[in-house]
Amino acid sequence: MILYERPNGLRLFFALRGSILPRIAPSLLTCTLLAVVVTLSHGVLFQWKITLTPVPFSLIGLALAIFLGFRNSTAYDRYWEARGLWGQMVESSRTLARQWLSLVRPLEDSVPGRQRHGDFVRRCIAHAHLVRHQLRGSAPGAELARLIGPEEAAAAQRLRLPSEALLRRNAELLGEALAQGRVAPALAAEIDRSLAALTHAHAGCERLRGTPIPFAYMLLLHRTAYLYCFLLPFGLIDQLGFMTPFVVAIVAYTFFGLDALGDEIEQPFGLSAHHLPLDALCRIIEIDLLEALGEPAPAPLQAVDGCLH
Amino acid sequence: MILYERPNGLRLFFALRGSILPRIAPSLLTCTLLAVVVTLSHGVLFQWKITLTPVPFSLIGLALAIFLGFRNSTAYDRYWEARGLWGQMVESSRTLARQWLSLVRPLEDSVPGRQRHGDFVRRCIAHAHLVRHQLRGSAPGAELARLIGPEEAAAAQRLRLPSEALLRRNAELLGEALAQGRVAPALAAEIDRSLAALTHAHAGCERLRGTPIPFAYMLLLHRTAYLYCFLLPFGLIDQLGFMTPFVVAIVAYTFFGLDALGDEIEQPFGLSAHHLPLDALCRIIEIDLLEALGEPAPAPLQAVDGCLH
Amino acid sequence: MILYERPNGLRLFFALRGSILPRIAPSLLTCTLLAVVVTLSHGVLFQWKITLTPVPFSLIGLALAIFLGFRNSTAYDRYWEARGLWGQMVESSRTLARQWLSLVRPLEDSVPGRQRHGDFVRRCIAHAHLVRHQLRGSAPGAELARLIGPEEAAAAQRLRLPSEALLRRNAELLGEALAQGRVAPALAAEIDRSLAALTHAHAGCERLRGTPIPFAYMLLLHRTAYLYCFLLPFGLIDQLGFMTPFVVAIVAYTFFGLDALGDEIEQPFGLSAHHLPLDALCRIIEIDLLEALGEPAPAPLQAVDGCLH
Amino acid sequence: MILYERPNGLRLFFALRGSILPRIAPSLLTCTLLAVVVTLSHGVLFQWKITLTPVPFSLIGLALAIFLGFRNSTAYDRYWEARGLWGQMVESSRTLARQWLSLVRPLEDSVPGRQRHGDFVRRCIAHAHLVRHQLRGSAPGAELARLIGPEEAAAAQRLRLPSEALLRRNAELLGEALAQGRVAPALAAEIDRSLAALTHAHAGCERLRGTPIPFAYMLLLHRTAYLYCFLLPFGLIDQLGFMTPFVVAIVAYTFFGLDALGDEIEQPFGLSAHHLPLDALCRIIEIDLLEALGEPAPAPLQAVDGCLH
Amino acid sequence: MILYERPNGLRLFFALRGSILPRIAPSLLTCTLLAVVVTLSHGVLFQWKITLTPVPFSLIGLALAIFLGFRNSTAYDRYWEARGLWGQMVESSRTLARQWLSLVRPLEDSVPGRQRHGDFVRRCIAHAHLVRHQLRGSAPGAELARLIGPEEAAAAQRLRLPSEALLRRNAELLGEALAQGRVAPALAAEIDRSLAALTHAHAGCERLRGTPIPFAYMLLLHRTAYLYCFLLPFGLIDQLGFMTPFVVAIVAYTFFGLDALGDEIEQPFGLSAHHLPLDALCRIIEIDLLEALGEPAPAPLQAVDGCLH
Repeated sequence: MILYERPNGLRLFFALRGSILPRIAPSLLTCTLLAVVVTLSHGVLFQWKITLTPVPFSLIGLALAIFLGFRNSTAYDRYWEARGLWGQMVESSRTLARQWLSLVRPLEDSVPGRQRHGDFVRRCIAHAHLVRHQLRGSAPGAELARLIGPEEAAAAQRLRLPSEALLRRNAELLGEALAQGRVAPALAAEIDRSLAALTHAHAGCERLRGTPIPFAYMLLLHRTAYLYCFLLPFGLIDQLGFMTPFVVAIVAYTFFGLDALGDEIEQPFGLSAHHLPLDALCRIIEIDLLEALGEPAPAPLQAVDGCLH
Repeated sequence: MILYERPNGLRLFFALRGSILPRIAPSLLTCTLLAVVVTLSHGVLFQWKITLTPVPFSLIGLALAIFLGFRNSTAYDRYWEARGLWGQMVESSRTLARQWLSLVRPLEDSVPGRQRHGDFVRRCIAHAHLVRHQLRGSAPGAELARLIGPEEAAAAQRLRLPSEALLRRNAELLGEALAQGRVAPALAAEIDRSLAALTHAHAGCERLRGTPIPFAYMLLLHRTAYLYCFLLPFGLIDQLGFMTPFVVAIVAYTFFGLDALGDEIEQPFGLSAHHLPLDALCRIIEIDLLEALGEPAPAPLQAVDGCLH
Repeated sequence: MILYERPNGLRLFFALRGSILPRIAPSLLTCTLLAVVVTLSHGVLFQWKITLTPVPFSLIGLALAIFLGFRNSTAYDRYWEARGLWGQMVESSRTLARQWLSLVRPLEDSVPGRQRHGDFVRRCIAHAHLVRHQLRGSAPGAELARLIGPEEAAAAQRLRLPSEALLRRNAELLGEALAQGRVAPALAAEIDRSLAALTHAHAGCERLRGTPIPFAYMLLLHRTAYLYCFLLPFGLIDQLGFMTPFVVAIVAYTFFGLDALGDEIEQPFGLSAHHLPLDALCRIIEIDLLEALGEPAPAPLQAVDGCLH
Repeated sequence: MILYERPNGLRLFFALRGSILPRIAPSLLTCTLLAVVVTLSHGVLFQWKITLTPVPFSLIGLALAIFLGFRNSTAYDRYWEARGLWGQMVESSRTLARQWLSLVRPLEDSVPGRQRHGDFVRRCIAHAHLVRHQLRGSAPGAELARLIGPEEAAAAQRLRLPSEALLRRNAELLGEALAQGRVAPALAAEIDRSLAALTHAHAGCERLRGTPIPFAYMLLLHRTAYLYCFLLPFGLIDQLGFMTPFVVAIVAYTFFGLDALGDEIEQPFGLSAHHLPLDALCRIIEIDLLEALGEPAPAPLQAVDGCLH
Repeated sequence: MILYERPNGLRLFFALRGSILPRIAPSLLTCTLLAVVVTLSHGVLFQWKITLTPVPFSLIGLALAIFLGFRNSTAYDRYWEARGLWGQMVESSRTLARQWLSLVRPLEDSVPGRQRHGDFVRRCIAHAHLVRHQLRGSAPGAELARLIGPEEAAAAQRLRLPSEALLRRNAELLGEALAQGRVAPALAAEIDRSLAALTHAHAGCERLRGTPIPFAYMLLLHRTAYLYCFLLPFGLIDQLGFMTPFVVAIVAYTFFGLDALGDEIEQPFGLSAHHLPLDALCRIIEIDLLEALGEPAPAPLQAVDGCLH
C-alpha cells in the first residue's frame, strides 16, 4: 500500500512511483504510435479512407462506460471487502486475547502456568501469520516455530489448511478449560464465537482469492476498450488534425489505466505496491496481543520508500 | 468457473474459449448481415429512404444504459451473493466440525466411539453434496451412501428437501448429547446456530435459484436492445458509409454480449463454464472436514482445460 | 411471478404475456398519435412552428436518467428485499421446527403427546399463511382452523395483528417447557431468537407495504417523463421526417414501461403476474414443516400458464 | 407521508398537493423570467451578445449529473435508513413484550401483580413516544404520565436523554427478576439484547438527525445547479427562439425539484407531508403492545387529507 | 462539522465559510488565467493553432465521470461509515453502562462501594476520549486522569493502543464479578459482547484512518481532471469566444471542488470544518454515562461560528 502524499503542480504529471503507467506502457505506446501513423496518412489505410466520425464512439462509449464503471466499483469493493476481513482479523484477535485472559482461569496460578496460559494468545498471532502466508502462497518462516513451537508448526504445515488446525487446537484448549470448570459455558460460547469470526475472516479472504470477476466480463471489457482506442484516431483525424495522437493518448491512458488498476486491486493479497499491507497488519496483531500478555512487543512496520507491504 | 489468464495482444481478439461469442453468434450475424444489406442499399428499403440519424440512438441509448447497467450489476450481485452463500457453507461446515469435535464429548471414549462421534462431521460433508445436487437438479451418487450410510441416504432422498433431513438428524444427535450432559447448553446453542447458518446458506441459494429477475424487465431490455441494434445501420449509413457494418457489429457485440453474460451468471449454480465451481467447493469442504477428523483427505479438484466445475 | 422462458426471434416482439405493454397502452397510444399529428403538420401547431431541436432533450434527459435509474434500482431493491424477508420466513420456520423437535422434550412421550408437541410446528405454518393474508389484505380460509384449531383461529383474527398472537402463543409454550425443565435456558434463548426472526421478517414486509417511495418523487418523475415524450416529436420532426412517430413510440415505450414496471414491483405482495409467489412460498413452508414432523405433505404449487402466485 | 394515488391524465400536471412545486416556486419563477428577458433581447445583455452554445451545458451537466445522482440516492438512503430504524423500534418493542410476558414470571401471580408486571410493556410504549418527541423537538404530552405515571415521567424529562432512562428502568426490573429467579439468565440475556436493539434504533435516528450531508457538498451542488439554470437561456436562445423559456422552466423544475426534495427527505423526522409518519408508527406500537397485554387498544391513525403524520 | 443553514439568493454565491473554494483557489486561478490567455490569443500557442474541438472532451468526460462519481461515493461512504462507527461507540457505551449498572451487583452495597462500581462506567467515558485522541494523533489531557486516575492513565499511555488496555481492565472487572457470582455467566457474556462492540468500532476507525483510497486511483483521477481543465479553453475558444474563461472557471470549480471535497471527507477524523465532531460525540457519551450513574453532567458542546469539532 502506498502511503505518500499526492505530488503537487507539474510533478503530478511526472510521478512514476505508484503510477499504473509502467504497466500499461506497451499498449499505450502501440495505440499512440498508431494514432501518429493515422495522423500522418490522414486516415487513409492502404488507399482506403476509413470513414469514421466521432458518432460511433459515443455509441460504443455507452457500453464502455457501463463496463468500466462496473469494473471499477467491483474491483474496489473487493479491495475494501478484503481490507474489512483483515480488519476483522485484527479485531477478533484482540477480542479473543481479551476474553481468554480475563474470563478463563489459568490451569495453574503460577508464573509458568500463566506463561502456558498465554500460548492460546500466541497461537492467535501465529494464525494471522499463517493466513497471510496462505493468501500469498509463501512459506511461513521462523516466526511460526517461535510462536507455537516447532512440532505444532510442522504438523500444521502438513495440512491443506494449516491455520484452521491452530484454531482447532485453541478450541481444544477451550474445551479442556470448560471441562475443568475454568470458564463458564456462556463465556466459552463467546470465545468460541470469536474463533468462528477468525474462520469467517479467513474463508472470506479465500473466497476473494479463489473467485475472480467472471472471465467473460474481462474479455468483453478488454476487447471493447482496445477496439475503441485503436479505432479512435480514424474518428478524430478529420476534426483534430495534429492533436489526434495527443487526445488518443489521454483517452487510452484513462481507459487502460482504469482497467489495469482494477486488475491490480481485485486480488489485493499480493506484494505489489497497490496491495494490502498484510505484513504490517500481522505485525499490528502481534504487538497488540503481546501488549495484552504484558510482554515486550516489536515496533510497528514502517513504510519503506512510501510503500508498506 | 474459468481460471486461465487473460490472453495478450492479438490473441485477445481471437480467443473463443470462455467468450460469450458462441452464444450470441446467431443474433450478431443477423444484425451484421442486415447492416451489410443497408450499406449496399444506402438505407433505402423498398424504395423508401429510412430517414434516421444518430440522434434517436442517443435518446434510446439513455434508457438502454439504465437497463444494461441495472442488468449488469443485478446479475453480478446475484453471482456474488451465491458465492458468498457457498462461502458460508464452507465456513459454517468448518466451524461446526471444530465445535462438535472440541466441545462435545463422544458417547464412548474409545476408537469406535470416536469414529461414531465423527458421523456428525461426515453428515456435514454429505449435506454440502446434497445441497449441490438439489441446486443443480442432479442425483447424488455413491458419495452419499459412503458418508452417511445407505439407509439414511435412501430415506433422505425420499423427501422434498433431503439436505434439511441431515441437519435434523445432526440436531437430534446434539439433543441427545445435551440430554446426556456431554455438552453444556450454552455451547449446544452455539452449535445449533451453526446448523442454522447452513439452513440459511441453503435457503439463500434456493431463493436465488427460484426467483429470477422479473420477466418484464428482461422483455423490456431485450426488445430495446434488439430494436436499437437492428435500426442502427439506418442511422449510421449516411455518415459512416462502408464502415457501418463494422460499427454495428461492435455495438451489437457489446450489447448482446453484456445481456447474454447476465443470463449466464444470474443463475450461477449450473455446469456452464461461467458458473460457480460447486464440485470444487464441496471437495474443499470434504478435505477440510476430513482433516479435522484426522482422516486421509482427497486432493482438491483441479481445473480441467482452464475450467473448474 | 412469471417463470417461462424468454421468447426467441420475432416472437420476442409480439409476446404480450408478461409484458408491461397492456398497462401502458393508453399513454403510449396517445403519445404516438400526437407524434403522427406532429409529423403530418410538420411541427406547426395552430400556425406556430414549434422551434424545438434535439438539444433540449439531451439536457432534460440528464435529469430523466437520474430519475429513472433511481426509480429502477429502488423498485427492484424493494422487490428483492421483500423476497429476502420471505426467504427468512422460510428459513426461520425450518430452523424453528428443527429446534423445537430436537431440543425440547414433549410433555408426554406418547403418540398423542408427540402429536400435541407438533402443534408448535403447525402454528408456524399457520403463521406464514396469516402473514401472507395480512400482506394481501385477504381473509384466511379453512387452512387456519385446520392447523391451529377453530377457537385459536377465531381469537387471533379478532386482533389487528393475528400473526403476532400465534408467535406469542408459541412463546408461551416455550415458557411452559422452560418452567417444566423440558428445554435448557440457553436453547430456549435460541428458539426465542428464531421467533424474533419471524417477527422481524413480518415487520419488514409491513414496512415495505406501508411506506411507498415518496410521492413527490413519483410526481416529479412522471411529469418529466410525460413532458419529455409529448414534446419529443417537435424536436425530431425536422431531422427524422416520417420516422418520427416510430422513434417516439420506441422512446415512450421504454420510459413508460420502465416506470410502470417500477410501480408493479415496488409493492410486490399482490396477485399480479409480477408479484412474489407468496402462495407457493407458504406451500413450501408447509411441506418442509410437515416433513420435519414426519407427516404426509402436499405437493409444491405449480405455475399455471407460466405464472406462480 | 403522502398516501394517495398518483393522479392520471392532465390532472397529473396540475396537482399541487404533495408536489415540491410550492417550495421551489420563487427560484423557478426568477429563472423563467430571466429566460423570458433573454428571449426578448435575443441573448444580448447590455449590448453584449453572450456567446454561449449548448456545448458548455453538456460539460457542466457531467458534474451536475454526478452531484444530483449522489444527492438523490444519499437523501433517499437516509430516508429509508430512518424508516428501517423505526421498523426496528416496532419490531423490537413487539419482541420485548412477547419475551417479557412469556419468559418472565410476574412477582405475584394475581390480577394486580400481573397488572404491575405489564408496566414493563407500557414503558416500552412510552419509550417510543419519547423517542418521537426527542427527534421532533416537541414536548411529550399526557400520554407519558398515563403510561408510566407522573413521577417517572417528570424525572425522565429532567435528563438530556429521557428515553434512555426508561430503558434503564426496564433493565432494573429485569435485574430484579433475575435476582429473584423469575427469569433464567440465558433468557434475561435475550431480553437485554432487545433493550439494546431499542438503544440502537434510537442512536441511529439521532445520528441521522445530527449529521447532515456535508455542507460543502450542498454548497457546490446548489451553486452549480443555479449557475447552470441561470445561464441556460443564453445557450439555447439561438437554437430554440421563443421556446427557450419553456425549456428552461422544465429543466429548472427538474433540477430544483430534485434538490428541494432531497432537502425534505434527508431529515425525515419532521412534520412535513414528505416526512415519516412517526405518530402513526407510535400508535401501531401502542396497539400491538396493548394487544399483547390483552388490554383494549385504540384504532390506528388514519391519513388526513391523504397525509399521515 | 458545519451546522449552519444554506444561504439564500445571491449570498449563496459569495459564501466562503464552509466552502471548498479557498482550498482549490490556486489551481482554479491558474486554470482560469490560462483560459484568459488562450482567449486573447484565439487558441494560437507559439504560432500553432491548437486544433481542439469539444468532441475530445466528451470522450475524456466519459472516464472522468466514472472517476469522479466513484471518488464522490467512496469518500462519502467512508465518511458515513466513520460516523456509523462513532454511532456505535455512543450506542455501545450506553448499553454497556446500562448493563453494568442493572445486571452486575456492586462488590459492596454501600455508597463508596457503588461509587467504585461506577469506575467501570467512567472507564468507558475515558475509552471514548482515548479513541478520539488516537484517531486525531493528539495527546489526552487532564480528563483521562480525572476519569480513571493518574496511575492507570499513565500506564495505558505507555502502550501502542491505550484504549484497548482500558477495555481489558474492564474485562478483568467483569471476570472478577463473574468469579464472585455477582453476575450470571449468560449476562456476563452479553456485557463482554458490548466490550467487543467497542473494540469493533475502534478497529473500524483505525482501518479507515490507515487505508486511504488506493494512491494510483487518485493519481489517475487528478491527472485526468487537470489535463481536462487545462486543455478545455482550446476546445471551447472557437465556439464561445470571450465567454471561454467563464465557462472554464465553472467547469474547473466543479471538478476541482468535488475532488478536494473528497480529499477532506475521506479521512474524517481531523479538525477541519468538514470533519466529524468527535469532541461533541465524546461529550455526549460523557453526559449520557454520567446521567446513567446519576451524577451531574456537563452541557453538550455547542457549535462555535456554525462549526462543531
